[in-house]
Amino acid sequence: MRLGFVSAILPDLGLEEVLAFANAEGFDCVELMCWPKGKAERRYAGVTHVDAASLDAAGASRVKAVLGEHGVSISGLGYYPNPLCPDPAEAQVYVEHIQAVVRAAALLGVGTVNTFVGRDWTKSVDAQWPRFLETWRPLVAYAEERGVRIGIENCPMLFTADEWPGGKNLATTPAIWRRMFADILSASFGLNFDPSHFVWQHMDYLEPLREFGDRIFHVHAKDVRVDRERLDDVGIMATPLEFHNPKLPGLGEVQWGRFFSVLSDTGYDGPVCVEVEDRAYEGSVERRKDALRQSLRYLRNFT
Amino acid sequence: MRLGFVSAILPDLGLEEVLAFANAEGFDCVELMCWPKGKAERRYAGVTHVDAASLDAAGASRVKAVLGEHGVSISGLGYYPNPLCPDPAEAQVYVEHIQAVVRAAALLGVGTVNTFVGRDWTKSVDAQWPRFLETWRPLVAYAEERGVRIGIENCPMLFTADEWPGGKNLATTPAIWRRMFADILSASFGLNFDPSHFVWQHMDYLEPLREFGDRIFHVHAKDVRVDRERLDDVGIMATPLEFHNPKLPGLGEVQWGRFFSVLSDTGYDGPVCVEVEDRAYEGSVERRKDALRQSLRYLRNFT
Amino acid sequence: MRLGFVSAILPDLGLEEVLAFANAEGFDCVELMCWPKGKAERRYAGVTHVDAASLDAAGASRVKAVLGEHGVSISGLGYYPNPLCPDPAEAQVYVEHIQAVVRAAALLGVGTVNTFVGRDWTKSVDAQWPRFLETWRPLVAYAEERGVRIGIENCPMLFTADEWPGGKNLATTPAIWRRMFADILSASFGLNFDPSHFVWQHMDYLEPLREFGDRIFHVHAKDVRVDRERLDDVGIMATPLEFHNPKLPGLGEVQWGRFFSVLSDTGYDGPVCVEVEDRAYEGSVERRKDALRQSLRYLRNFT
Amino acid sequence: MRLGFVSAILPDLGLEEVLAFANAEGFDCVELMCWPKGKAERRYAGVTHVDAASLDAAGASRVKAVLGEHGVSISGLGYYPNPLCPDPAEAQVYVEHIQAVVRAAALLGVGTVNTFVGRDWTKSVDAQWPRFLETWRPLVAYAEERGVRIGIENCPMLFTADEWPGGKNLATTPAIWRRMFADILSASFGLNFDPSHFVWQHMDYLEPLREFGDRIFHVHAKDVRVDRERLDDVGIMATPLEFHNPKLPGLGEVQWGRFFSVLSDTGYDGPVCVEVEDRAYEGSVERRKDALRQSLRYLRNFT
Amino acid sequence: MRLGFVSAILPDLGLEEVLAFANAEGFDCVELMCWPKGKAERRYAGVTHVDAASLDAAGASRVKAVLGEHGVSISGLGYYPNPLCPDPAEAQVYVEHIQAVVRAAALLGVGTVNTFVGRDWTKSVDAQWPRFLETWRPLVAYAEERGVRIGIENCPMLFTADEWPGGKNLATTPAIWRRMFADILSASFGLNFDPSHFVWQHMDYLEPLREFGDRIFHVHAKDVRVDRERLDDVGIMATPLEFHNPKLPGLGEVQWGRFFSVLSDTGYDGPVCVEVEDRAYEGSVERRKDALRQSLRYLRNFT
Amino acid sequence: MRLGFVSAILPDLGLEEVLAFANAEGFDCVELMCWPKGKAERRYAGVTHVDAASLDAAGASRVKAVLGEHGVSISGLGYYPNPLCPDPAEAQVYVEHIQAVVRAAALLGVGTVNTFVGRDWTKSVDAQWPRFLETWRPLVAYAEERGVRIGIENCPMLFTADEWPGGKNLATTPAIWRRMFADILSASFGLNFDPSHFVWQHMDYLEPLREFGDRIFHVHAKDVRVDRERLDDVGIMATPLEFHNPKLPGLGEVQWGRFFSVLSDTGYDGPVCVEVEDRAYEGSVERRKDALRQSLRYLRNFT
Repeated sequence: MRLGFVSAILPDLGLEEVLAFANAEGFDCVELMCWPKGKAERRYAGVTHVDAASLDAAGASRVKAVLGEHGVSISGLGYYPNPLCPDPAEAQVYVEHIQAVVRAAALLGVGTVNTFVGRDWTKSVDAQWPRFLETWRPLVAYAEERGVRIGIENCPMLFTADEWPGGKNLATTPAIWRRMFADILSASFGLNFDPSHFVWQHMDYLEPLREFGDRIFHVHAKDVRVDRERLDDVGIMATPLEFHNPKLPGLGEVQWGRFFSVLSDTGYDGPVCVEVEDRAYEGSVERRKDALRQSLRYLRNFT
Repeated sequence: MRLGFVSAILPDLGLEEVLAFANAEGFDCVELMCWPKGKAERRYAGVTHVDAASLDAAGASRVKAVLGEHGVSISGLGYYPNPLCPDPAEAQVYVEHIQAVVRAAALLGVGTVNTFVGRDWTKSVDAQWPRFLETWRPLVAYAEERGVRIGIENCPMLFTADEWPGGKNLATTPAIWRRMFADILSASFGLNFDPSHFVWQHMDYLEPLREFGDRIFHVHAKDVRVDRERLDDVGIMATPLEFHNPKLPGLGEVQWGRFFSVLSDTGYDGPVCVEVEDRAYEGSVERRKDALRQSLRYLRNFT
Repeated sequence: MRLGFVSAILPDLGLEEVLAFANAEGFDCVELMCWPKGKAERRYAGVTHVDAASLDAAGASRVKAVLGEHGVSISGLGYYPNPLCPDPAEAQVYVEHIQAVVRAAALLGVGTVNTFVGRDWTKSVDAQWPRFLETWRPLVAYAEERGVRIGIENCPMLFTADEWPGGKNLATTPAIWRRMFADILSASFGLNFDPSHFVWQHMDYLEPLREFGDRIFHVHAKDVRVDRERLDDVGIMATPLEFHNPKLPGLGEVQWGRFFSVLSDTGYDGPVCVEVEDRAYEGSVERRKDALRQSLRYLRNFT
Repeated sequence: MRLGFVSAILPDLGLEEVLAFANAEGFDCVELMCWPKGKAERRYAGVTHVDAASLDAAGASRVKAVLGEHGVSISGLGYYPNPLCPDPAEAQVYVEHIQAVVRAAALLGVGTVNTFVGRDWTKSVDAQWPRFLETWRPLVAYAEERGVRIGIENCPMLFTADEWPGGKNLATTPAIWRRMFADILSASFGLNFDPSHFVWQHMDYLEPLREFGDRIFHVHAKDVRVDRERLDDVGIMATPLEFHNPKLPGLGEVQWGRFFSVLSDTGYDGPVCVEVEDRAYEGSVERRKDALRQSLRYLRNFT
Repeated sequence: MRLGFVSAILPDLGLEEVLAFANAEGFDCVELMCWPKGKAERRYAGVTHVDAASLDAAGASRVKAVLGEHGVSISGLGYYPNPLCPDPAEAQVYVEHIQAVVRAAALLGVGTVNTFVGRDWTKSVDAQWPRFLETWRPLVAYAEERGVRIGIENCPMLFTADEWPGGKNLATTPAIWRRMFADILSASFGLNFDPSHFVWQHMDYLEPLREFGDRIFHVHAKDVRVDRERLDDVGIMATPLEFHNPKLPGLGEVQWGRFFSVLSDTGYDGPVCVEVEDRAYEGSVERRKDALRQSLRYLRNFT
Repeated sequence: MRLGFVSAILPDLGLEEVLAFANAEGFDCVELMCWPKGKAERRYAGVTHVDAASLDAAGASRVKAVLGEHGVSISGLGYYPNPLCPDPAEAQVYVEHIQAVVRAAALLGVGTVNTFVGRDWTKSVDAQWPRFLETWRPLVAYAEERGVRIGIENCPMLFTADEWPGGKNLATTPAIWRRMFADILSASFGLNFDPSHFVWQHMDYLEPLREFGDRIFHVHAKDVRVDRERLDDVGIMATPLEFHNPKLPGLGEVQWGRFFSVLSDTGYDGPVCVEVEDRAYEGSVERRKDALRQSLRYLRNFT
């Protein structure tokens, strides 16, 4: 497997600086953020290390040259909007930019685009399933035609009252994955697997590695700590950040040795990118770089 | 403590038959259901062992005579509607019948009425807090004036997609209880404590026995089994019956020895009523009676 | 479910005495041992409470009359030889007596005969599979034709060096059960499920209740205690009695509350018979009766 | 095994009332308290159901007659002073009364006297070992000569600041037992084994059942609950009642099924006496009787 | 956070050698031992890397120069005597040297002095509380006036029979800390937090990180292993080294990932100093250096 | 302790390349494989980094020169045949080559030869004990005379149906070790201790470190993962690879921190050699080198 990181944590650095840092620290690859240029809608969003909308062949060549120079590869292009958000016009903007990121990936020869399927957070899964299919069947086909695979991250995007009750991403559990992959038949439709989201959902993250082995296109290494005494106070119907904290790998409850043990047995040898959302490590760009260094040291025990 | 049962499980029996059964089997008391006469809105609802709306002094005397005859006491009157349901007219019907049950309790010399505070299941806790206070401040005062205590059961009333996402009862966690008891100051406002709801909410049910010791007016002895492999498939954002089953005491995850150990240390010596919602024991009235017998045998180990 | 016991523990009592004891102590049913008259080959074997070989219609009527008198039913007829033992002539004797027990069951109107499929303990599972099929296809057909179901107990019959290495019964795990039921297609071929054998084999005994729900014809309630410090010394390759002891229900590691919780949810309402093989309770017939009384008291907590 | 209780919990009842209660509730035996007549020095002490000092042959006959009448036996005579207390004169009074109890046991044909070896709580174990031997060698010889066995209870008698730091009984751990039995060689010197004291000392109570199998003369069935959150605050150097509560069997942490499982395998078939020190059950004599009834019901699951 | 070590483990090295080693191995800081020159009273004591008593402005400048040269900072000055020892004259010597260390810290611009509050080990906590206040109110004031904070380590200093029963330091539990900080009101009075001492005291070491977050001035990274089989023999009333061994971080029971996870969330960014008391690593100065190297490698996974 | 690896994983590299790699990566030592030249009989066998049969003084000097050049030592010579295999002629070949390896060790000044005692897999332990003694008494004497110690690895060599039921090595448990060392009295007869084999045998691997401390001549660092869901299907009577997978250290169930904690306390300071049998890391020589690098990084946390 190749160890990398998600570039969203280094918004203050340009592409070259990101790659130089990756190279200097011993990372093999980077998942480059491709948000549209402009203002972020939420923490960790809005970072643009590759401007997908404007990327052309020449631009792609320049990016490739820089990559070669730093000896670092792109694990995937990342853009995580809500293409099923309640406002259809807004959703359409997201869909179109996903298409732009797919085109950019094709130009760059990057095989994977990571994103969310989105969710209308006011509706149940069943209630919005038809809309999910309408949106995603053509999107998956679009990617498949261009030789790009779509890796859907399994984050529920339900953290606080703002996304209550359903969160902003449907693709959160094995039960829903089975339904997704049964209803949209394409080998280009798969997962960006992050074990941390399973922890606070109180779900096993090992068996799905086996069942969905051929759907795992990309892996995020993030961790979370569930605080028992907070959970005792508010219960699982609370918004999740009331009872858990995202943390660096090794500072949470994911058993990474066990995780890589099973993952290695599935034959996975793709990228594993550290995703930093640990508020204790956000004070400065240097502190965020430290977060990446520490995560890499920790993960090197297991891969 | 006095062991009893919730009469809702014996809808086919009249009051005398219920009391005769209780006496014959060695139960000390019964929580008598006081739904308005008519059709039930859901499983376990709609049972009328005392017709609160029509009860007068003479009727109360008759009930007391029957109780005396069978040597069984009433642990509380029970009526569990949703007085915060989205339709205000419907909610008002519930509020008025709660008042009727309070009056019936006063007539019968029964100190406790058990119910739900209700919830508008489409709204967050914060969004409906003002309405909660408007509804419940006068209701609690109404009960207090008549010497009756209100015991709110801690069931979230979120079981399937029908009550998604919020369920039909706000009073589900220590965090919300603290807010309730801080905002409605009355020693007549307390809890009908059921440990089983804490289990599937992944919360501790022992420490709250200590913190809310003086608020526990009544106890329900129900149990649940969380099925790990089902939870692994759907996660905690699913509707709860997707991953757990209500069961008789001793067939679930509540550690009853530990529960009664802590409860006895708080000085609680009120009623503990078996509540049967175990579908494996619902085939016939005899089977449901067996459920009560088995539960009593089991609980007699600990109290 | 109906609680009973396996009559092998009371070899000193005649049929009427067994039934009288069962009735007096509150058991619903008894699994009657049908070993051929003569000497036992091992502990707990060789007991004959119904002499299947000689039973005719008149004898069956007499048995039924005695049953009616004592208000106790037969949960099944039991005979546990090794019909796949290395010596084919010996095996044939066992097969023929199994047929006799099937005929006796038909005469008595008892739906279930409990036995072992047997095993050539010197051979691997694969090496003897063809012989297993040759022996059991006709035996199962024989029972099916007579309206009798065969319940195979899941005991490996590997206890000491005498049965090393394979034991005397193949039908020990879900993996083997799947193969058995796939290769011998008959609704009359099922299981006499005993959770205790799963404990020392370090297997889960709950999930198989679900998967094989429609194959469970009979249940044995036995328990075992695995002694950690003995296992630490000899490991799982030792003969099993080097690291575990059979015990009464409640004195071992089976979580009976959990067991009956899941079993009740499968819809099982057949017999559950206490099987006593606890050496601490074998000193006298009175002590063995105490073992049955204690087991019944314990199990009544859960069913 | 024979189930009984320690009579100290019924100080308000005379001997006959105690035995009548035992018989009516189904207890097999009673450990009768033999404190000298007079004022108790601490909770649960000072009860005199047999006045050992004044007992003569005639008195013994009367006691035996009453026992015969009620069909209850004496499991042992109990007297639990501190014969190693710092004041030698006081200690001598205790020693002499232990001798009186031994004589009473001989007169009554009761084989076992239960007591403490005592401790000078201000001194370490080593510092007082010579005095322990001086006191106990003759005491054990005295009992042995009269055919009476001494069962030393393993309670540290360290509960609150009053007995800080060493408690009032040395015989608290396997390490000390080995030393005791090596230094005082007598088959009449053994244990009154109470598993609850091992729980708060954070020790295993199962393996010692095996190692000291032939030294176990008597068993006390008491339980304790260790409260994690209290222990987290004060640690194990606190006085023990700061972090645990004595409770009835089934309301604490002793795994009684496991306990009786191992105990039965050792061949023990002596008395097991419920000892009630649960403050939640001390309000009235009726409440204390309920404690005994509940404990008996619970323990009957396992023996 | 800054990783360092306690210099006591390198008594054979002079200050410059210690700092050179720290720098070479990648440590950020060192806690320098300031015992008075002379003979050590116990293992790990008596090391003098800064001679506080004789330090003057010139000396301080020289120390600072050496620090600057090696790029290593002082995490705190350390001196761990028993200023509440039974002999008042001896205690006074300790108090005076603590004052000297405070003065040295002020001269060096080091903000923290680490020490023990001490204990008269023959007395209970309550019995010596007045003396504790008399000694420590002026000492804390002395430090506060000089801009130095006092970090009290939470080691009970009870290891063997020599310190029985109370140990040589009162400040061992949250319960006692609350009392200390309530009775001596000063923001200069806080903790040198070592999680290992909580392990053998069977206490949680995570929640106190939150409750006492603003009192944590310094952290020691030491670990211990509790040996279950030894504890089973002697129980918690034994002297602690009878059942546990101090070990390097990662070789004991402290869950360091969890520890740093919670610690980082409290906002702590002070020093974390490895304290080596692992006898398996004491054979030579090289072996002790290895102990520091290994500890640093291990801890770098988490910080 | 010295960290090394077993050279069997690098069959494609010659001795010098193996040593160069070891040196470059920071390994202290290597266990060199000494299979006879020729074809391997099984995976990981048949590797010849030292040709023991032909080694003479000159050859030994050349090997020592190469070792010196690369600064790497030999932890032991390794050859793992089955000298008790059913065919006596074949067994004799193995015995003679073990002698050759002993001679080679003596020539090289290497103190330890690692091997298996072997087993006739069709026979029970007892049945072949006499043959074990006949074979091994002279072999151990042969080694002792030459100043070489024999370290027997504790691998049962039972993985699949091919070695069913007994495996190819008797020396698998503490119970058997005690018997071995009692029957062959020689300080040159000891263990090459690999904790991973204890894991799937469901045995503790810590206590034996203490009991057999003076018999541990060499340590293998391998790990395994037991897959619960596979074990649930097949049970412990299955061939072991049906329910577990060998993995790199850190990717299995061995608690390495705990392991090295206890091992260091025993005073062991010999070699610890990584043994790679993880199929996920076998694709290429580079991948196998990565396996060694990763294992070293991981183990350096603890030693």
